[in-house]
Amino acid sequence: MKKLVAEFFGTMWLVIGGCGSAVLAAGYPELGIGFVGVSIAFGLTVVTMAYAIGHISGCHLNPAVTIGLWAGGRFDTKEIVPYIISQVLGATIGATILYLIASGKSGFELGGFAANGFGEHSPDGYSMIAVLICEVVMTFMFLIVILGATHSKAPKGFAGLAIGLALTLIHLISIPVSNTSVNPARSTSQAIFVGDWAMGQLWLFWVAPIVGAILAGYVYKYLSPDTED
Amino acid sequence: MKKLVAEFFGTMWLVIGGCGSAVLAAGYPELGIGFVGVSIAFGLTVVTMAYAIGHISGCHLNPAVTIGLWAGGRFDTKEIVPYIISQVLGATIGATILYLIASGKSGFELGGFAANGFGEHSPDGYSMIAVLICEVVMTFMFLIVILGATHSKAPKGFAGLAIGLALTLIHLISIPVSNTSVNPARSTSQAIFVGDWAMGQLWLFWVAPIVGAILAGYVYKYLSPDTED
Amino acid sequence: MKKLVAEFFGTMWLVIGGCGSAVLAAGYPELGIGFVGVSIAFGLTVVTMAYAIGHISGCHLNPAVTIGLWAGGRFDTKEIVPYIISQVLGATIGATILYLIASGKSGFELGGFAANGFGEHSPDGYSMIAVLICEVVMTFMFLIVILGATHSKAPKGFAGLAIGLALTLIHLISIPVSNTSVNPARSTSQAIFVGDWAMGQLWLFWVAPIVGAILAGYVYKYLSPDTED
Amino acid sequence: MKKLVAEFFGTMWLVIGGCGSAVLAAGYPELGIGFVGVSIAFGLTVVTMAYAIGHISGCHLNPAVTIGLWAGGRFDTKEIVPYIISQVLGATIGATILYLIASGKSGFELGGFAANGFGEHSPDGYSMIAVLICEVVMTFMFLIVILGATHSKAPKGFAGLAIGLALTLIHLISIPVSNTSVNPARSTSQAIFVGDWAMGQLWLFWVAPIVGAILAGYVYKYLSPDTED
Repeated sequence: MKKLVAEFFGTMWLVIGGCGSAVLAAGYPELGIGFVGVSIAFGLTVVTMAYAIGHISGCHLNPAVTIGLWAGGRFDTKEIVPYIISQVLGATIGATILYLIASGKSGFELGGFAANGFGEHSPDGYSMIAVLICEVVMTFMFLIVILGATHSKAPKGFAGLAIGLALTLIHLISIPVSNTSVNPARSTSQAIFVGDWAMGQLWLFWVAPIVGAILAGYVYKYLSPDTED
Repeated sequence: MKKLVAEFFGTMWLVIGGCGSAVLAAGYPELGIGFVGVSIAFGLTVVTMAYAIGHISGCHLNPAVTIGLWAGGRFDTKEIVPYIISQVLGATIGATILYLIASGKSGFELGGFAANGFGEHSPDGYSMIAVLICEVVMTFMFLIVILGATHSKAPKGFAGLAIGLALTLIHLISIPVSNTSVNPARSTSQAIFVGDWAMGQLWLFWVAPIVGAILAGYVYKYLSPDTED
Repeated sequence: MKKLVAEFFGTMWLVIGGCGSAVLAAGYPELGIGFVGVSIAFGLTVVTMAYAIGHISGCHLNPAVTIGLWAGGRFDTKEIVPYIISQVLGATIGATILYLIASGKSGFELGGFAANGFGEHSPDGYSMIAVLICEVVMTFMFLIVILGATHSKAPKGFAGLAIGLALTLIHLISIPVSNTSVNPARSTSQAIFVGDWAMGQLWLFWVAPIVGAILAGYVYKYLSPDTED
Repeated sequence: MKKLVAEFFGTMWLVIGGCGSAVLAAGYPELGIGFVGVSIAFGLTVVTMAYAIGHISGCHLNPAVTIGLWAGGRFDTKEIVPYIISQVLGATIGATILYLIASGKSGFELGGFAANGFGEHSPDGYSMIAVLICEVVMTFMFLIVILGATHSKAPKGFAGLAIGLALTLIHLISIPVSNTSVNPARSTSQAIFVGDWAMGQLWLFWVAPIVGAILAGYVYKYLSPDTED
């Protein structure tokens, strides 16, 4: 149960920090943090939580990570569903808190609320196919980093940095493509508030990350210097 | 006594570095560091001090951190007041040094001097309630990171990075909301120079961080994998 | 064979991440990541892969690194060619994936595709000689960092950070000069897509990095606190 | 002798990386790295060299650091002069390489060449007194970080990160004030090329950093948890 509470707070923080920086600070006139700042923020949610709760729950914060670790033989089947529920709940509470803060600004408009999208809802107009490829590849590489950096032969203690900075990197590449998901819980929490098109396109941000994550699980099993349970 | 001198210098550095980067460098034409640079600067004051004085005083630099650690059962009651006095003194001397440097520019005007505020004194016009929620949540999560990353089961040595980068993350999210406090000593040191509205709104930047910190102390006690003294 | 697959995926990631951030995100209006973001992205491809696959293949991702390690007495002669082939293949597949994503944007034009160049194809108009000096010096220092940070007397575990951040630093300096190569595999993968002038100038981005790397191998042999095999 | 060669290359890299990023990349239209990028670059020269040559020479790269460590009882008197000579030579060769690259751009003009200055040569017009205070305080805190992070009770291995990031922080604060020195070797190497006013103001960038460093040496002796030789 402690694990589930930890995943709840961690995923809440991912949404408040990552989506929050995008909604509150990215476009501030002249001094705004832009995509660089948002990319750093998303990564730091994971870095900070990895060291804070990694030793409690493993700090997945992401259904695709949970499923990828399972595919790689590192996570127990019966814990998958509770983890995913905690993550989606945490993300949704995170989005609610973000909404409470953001709506306290005079002249607030919801806008995209950092939701993920493709086609006309891609920040820079990328097609559904391009977004699909991008999300699969990004999540695939994210899981390769996660599986590799937490391997027993990797340097001890650095996994939290490597994994968090991988998320920063992924955002530096792909915010213009899809607003970057690689995380169905994060996508869901924003889509609930935006509704409409965001709910209609949400399927892609469950399918693509999970496909990428499962592929990575199998590839890393082959790459791994030895078999771990 | 060494602990108190260390807290003094550390909090002085937090104000010179964090508020200093905001006052001196954020808005420099074209090449200025913007909110990203200020966020990195605040975080690095903590990263650098964590490794420099962490082994002397624990490197709190912040009354809310001191109180949150106490609420989490990690800090001795009788040291709270001396720590807070050292922090407020250090912050004030830091603000004085910053004033001495900043006022050496031709055409200097004090302006907001990086003070924290809400309503019309929020950088982007956020209401008192929004600022209150934001400061409580940010300090809550800051303390969760501090309590978790310094736990005996967390990877050794990385706490300074995780905690400092948590402060960077918090600034990436919330500078537009309140100029980001999560630290009553930092807020006080700026309000002294700005006076007027900044002194009038200072109460919030003591109450909200301390409330968030105490909540985190109790939540982490539950989350913690074991009881520590 | 696992080593070669690891180098393949790692170099693929270097191109998707580094060149990808440049092509997809650098010039996005107002919020784009600029050269700072691209520099961070290139560095993080190496940081993330160093912790993910460093314990499998050593994480070279770069023919100049492979040759420099050999010159420094740290890499076996008979593995040089297979490593370089894997790197060039990985980079080329990375560029292909990037092309698939990038071309999914309405109104896509290939442009420079982050290829390296000199003279009129240098981003800021640097001469061939300036680019040659720059690439030799940058790769020389890159290898000094690699050879030093992986030395047995350097702090354990930090090499991945130091080496990746060295690549960030190199990009912060030299993107305006040559778009920064220091990596013949990366340069080749872009030149294949751009063809024309990029293929015609590609020789420099094999010669200069390899010369710089070999020089560093010999210099570090002298500097090294002891002889290692 | 290896120590002196290591200091030579390290200080050369500090100038090529830090001043180089400023001269070549800071003001590039739209995509330029600005003061944030220059600040990161200066810090990363130290991070990368700390892990590459720290175990050879201690990686001072700076006469003020050498003198501050001596004042703090950590460095041998008879090595001071050779270290400083190596640092100034390395910085000068670094500036020469930077000049060779920079002058290869069509329409090159030397301009300030990232030299340090006060009064009308301060980037934002700060007075001599303000620059003096700023350089003393910045170098004082830089040495506190260096002395603290390399203390035997500080976490092992992190000193290179903490010290390099301290230099990033110092630049985030003070580039607008003085172009940031805290390093007489770096200042000298630029002044040689700019001549004129830069040579006339160079005294301050020897005096202030050394005063700050010596003060820190004595303060840290008091703060230190125990006496070290």
